[in-house]
Amino acid sequence: MDFLTGKRETGVLDLQELLSEEKDGCVVKTNGAVLSIRDMGDIVFIILRKRDGILQAVMERGAVNEEAPALREECFVEAEGRIVKEARAPHGVELKLTSVRILSAPEVPMPVAVSKWKLGASLEARLDMRPLTLRNLRERARFKVQEGIARAFREYLQGEGFTEIHTPKIGARGAEGGANVFKLEYFHRPAVLAQSPQFYKQMMVGVFDRVMEIGPVFRAEKHNTKRHLNEYTGLDFEMGYIEDFRDIMAMETGFLQHMTALLKAEYGAELSLLHVELPDTARIPAVPFSEAKRLVSEAYHTQIRNPYDLEPEEEHLIGRYFKEKYNADFVFVTHYPSKKRPFYAMDDPADPTYTLSFDLLFRGLEVTTGGQRIHAYTELMDKIRRRGMDTEGMEDYLSAFRHGMPPHGGLGIGLERMAMQLLGEENVREASLFPRDLSRLVP
Amino acid sequence: MDFLTGKRETGVLDLQELLSEEKDGCVVKTNGAVLSIRDMGDIVFIILRKRDGILQAVMERGAVNEEAPALREECFVEAEGRIVKEARAPHGVELKLTSVRILSAPEVPMPVAVSKWKLGASLEARLDMRPLTLRNLRERARFKVQEGIARAFREYLQGEGFTEIHTPKIGARGAEGGANVFKLEYFHRPAVLAQSPQFYKQMMVGVFDRVMEIGPVFRAEKHNTKRHLNEYTGLDFEMGYIEDFRDIMAMETGFLQHMTALLKAEYGAELSLLHVELPDTARIPAVPFSEAKRLVSEAYHTQIRNPYDLEPEEEHLIGRYFKEKYNADFVFVTHYPSKKRPFYAMDDPADPTYTLSFDLLFRGLEVTTGGQRIHAYTELMDKIRRRGMDTEGMEDYLSAFRHGMPPHGGLGIGLERMAMQLLGEENVREASLFPRDLSRLVP
Repeated sequence: MDFLTGKRETGVLDLQELLSEEKDGCVVKTNGAVLSIRDMGDIVFIILRKRDGILQAVMERGAVNEEAPALREECFVEAEGRIVKEARAPHGVELKLTSVRILSAPEVPMPVAVSKWKLGASLEARLDMRPLTLRNLRERARFKVQEGIARAFREYLQGEGFTEIHTPKIGARGAEGGANVFKLEYFHRPAVLAQSPQFYKQMMVGVFDRVMEIGPVFRAEKHNTKRHLNEYTGLDFEMGYIEDFRDIMAMETGFLQHMTALLKAEYGAELSLLHVELPDTARIPAVPFSEAKRLVSEAYHTQIRNPYDLEPEEEHLIGRYFKEKYNADFVFVTHYPSKKRPFYAMDDPADPTYTLSFDLLFRGLEVTTGGQRIHAYTELMDKIRRRGMDTEGMEDYLSAFRHGMPPHGGLGIGLERMAMQLLGEENVREASLFPRDLSRLVP
Repeated sequence: MDFLTGKRETGVLDLQELLSEEKDGCVVKTNGAVLSIRDMGDIVFIILRKRDGILQAVMERGAVNEEAPALREECFVEAEGRIVKEARAPHGVELKLTSVRILSAPEVPMPVAVSKWKLGASLEARLDMRPLTLRNLRERARFKVQEGIARAFREYLQGEGFTEIHTPKIGARGAEGGANVFKLEYFHRPAVLAQSPQFYKQMMVGVFDRVMEIGPVFRAEKHNTKRHLNEYTGLDFEMGYIEDFRDIMAMETGFLQHMTALLKAEYGAELSLLHVELPDTARIPAVPFSEAKRLVSEAYHTQIRNPYDLEPEEEHLIGRYFKEKYNADFVFVTHYPSKKRPFYAMDDPADPTYTLSFDLLFRGLEVTTGGQRIHAYTELMDKIRRRGMDTEGMEDYLSAFRHGMPPHGGLGIGLERMAMQLLGEENVREASLFPRDLSRLVP
């Protein structure tokens, strides 16, 4: 009988292994995709794209096997040679090829020069060809950074006792009411796609105290803006036994601090490739909604048109104000008006027209919405009645409260927006691997 | 200006902190939900359910504040008292209460005795009341174990250079053809929910070499069995530069070894609560499909009815055979017939009626499907033509191959099935937080 006993050792080296001092001068085997070829006549420089970076290989005519001259861009190869120090090469090393095995060769040349530093194509064109354009190092690097953000969220919260859950994305009714939900037929019954894991994560506070979820969120909003996606990745958490909603903001601050530390420690190559400057997360100012409105209206001589919500321009100005005044990249805007928040938001006892909730702005864009929730059943039912809401489809949610729930709160972060702002992109689609918007359903 | 500077220190202790030797005899503050109350007259025992386990608290009449006597099950409380050693209590410690603050009290008693060791209710009833029944320690513990499986998958693959990606769940067409997909309307256009991230993860091998995803998978299958869900959590990976499909099985074996090690190290309390015996993952036998069929047919005198697929009963017998003969909990069944595998499966050059693919059986149930994929464009197109398939909607997928793709393969694991088998459950719904099946769309 044949047995599997664990990961196979192949002797094929990663970039990090190749770069280790002890490999200097050794004959090694590695692999990669041919990102670019520079033919100098007697000598040919080949840049290999590997998962953790690039490696310069050099081929002298006559010194390699006969397969080598057939190499072209986007060939996937296994390469052998001697690894030597070379100050002018990336990472200061170079692979002097002795043999190349072409594992796979393209049928046609790339429609866009992915080997270039910057892709000379419009956003639309780049998205249309995303499976190919992501082979560009800078395009690809964004999604390593995005991975780092999600990883930091999970790692940090895991350390704080949160349980990671997976809640259903198909349900009988949306958590926040009927608008903006995608509808589908579920075995001859009407169903919807989850707009958020809100109800589930709240119910699970009664079970696990602290829960988190990273998963897709679906919003059938007919917005076609630079900051909206119709499917995005939500980073959600919900925690019980809070004193007040500052506990939620404090926990998010802890996550942001871990995020910048993790990115700095493990994603330095990508940050440097993309010229990303990490934000300061040591101290994040918190300002009440109304005061924020007043501050920017006075500072920038703008009119307050809508007293109940922040317009994108106001968010931008709040970001600018706190950057100028406190050198802050993040700002918590607290106490949003009750009428603009969902029914489950806890109203401020000091002034019930406002809620104990917040948004986090990152460089002038909302990246998080959160706050304390109502946990007392009678209070929740009162608010539902005052709003004239129908409780149909909310029976399970309400039942959890009827049987006792601790004081709690939580938040939802849009992963793509967080990545977009961190990377300094103008359009959230840059930070979504395969964006879905009003007009885009492929690739 | 008010600033947030990181996680708030509350002085409220976790169970692990309470159990530390240095806290013995100290006055402490903690919190929890009242799981059960045993009133002995002068003395009342209260079991608190905390996120990381239970804590016995003891209240002497007259020694506590006046709020304490109002305590009932599913009250969420903050408690103060002295922590002392008590051999008869869980973990060997007990909290001698001096003060109890009721943070929240239920309106009505629980409809089912969640404090009992085993819930005396049918699966249907338990699922109908899941937000409540999960408050039972054993029901809850399953999902900590499930968390451990997903965490092990991610941790192990991260260490092996895999990039975690998030691919869209709404698309224009299913990866594996038209059957069994949920359809929805996407801004007046037909769309479907992803049956798997198959096409995306393959395309991303050309970018990141190694990718993984943990996310929801939607199957509109009209099966109503103990092992099918219509929405489940897929653990997917895809890796490039493989020598052959054994690399995939070897990587999965590595993950399984990490999984058992992690569960043993960090989920011991839950395993012990659920009486789970971890499987042996040191050596996993691999047997070709046809041989497996022959072996069990001979050993158990059964007839081979369908030579192209394994029936559930055959999977069960294969599991039994390898358990009896090799004491194996896992078995790789390799070389499935080509006609039962998707078009992208690589056929075995030695006999193209079979594929270089596998299923992993765990205690007689399929928990993984994987294998090597065709990477050469012409070969892929040939197979598509031979099958008479329509390539409409596959343009982007095929384009990635036309522009070069390394040899690669991958797999998909059903998280709930893996958890179900690990936990020794009879029904996969036990291992899904909020299962979706033919008749269940709530809670």
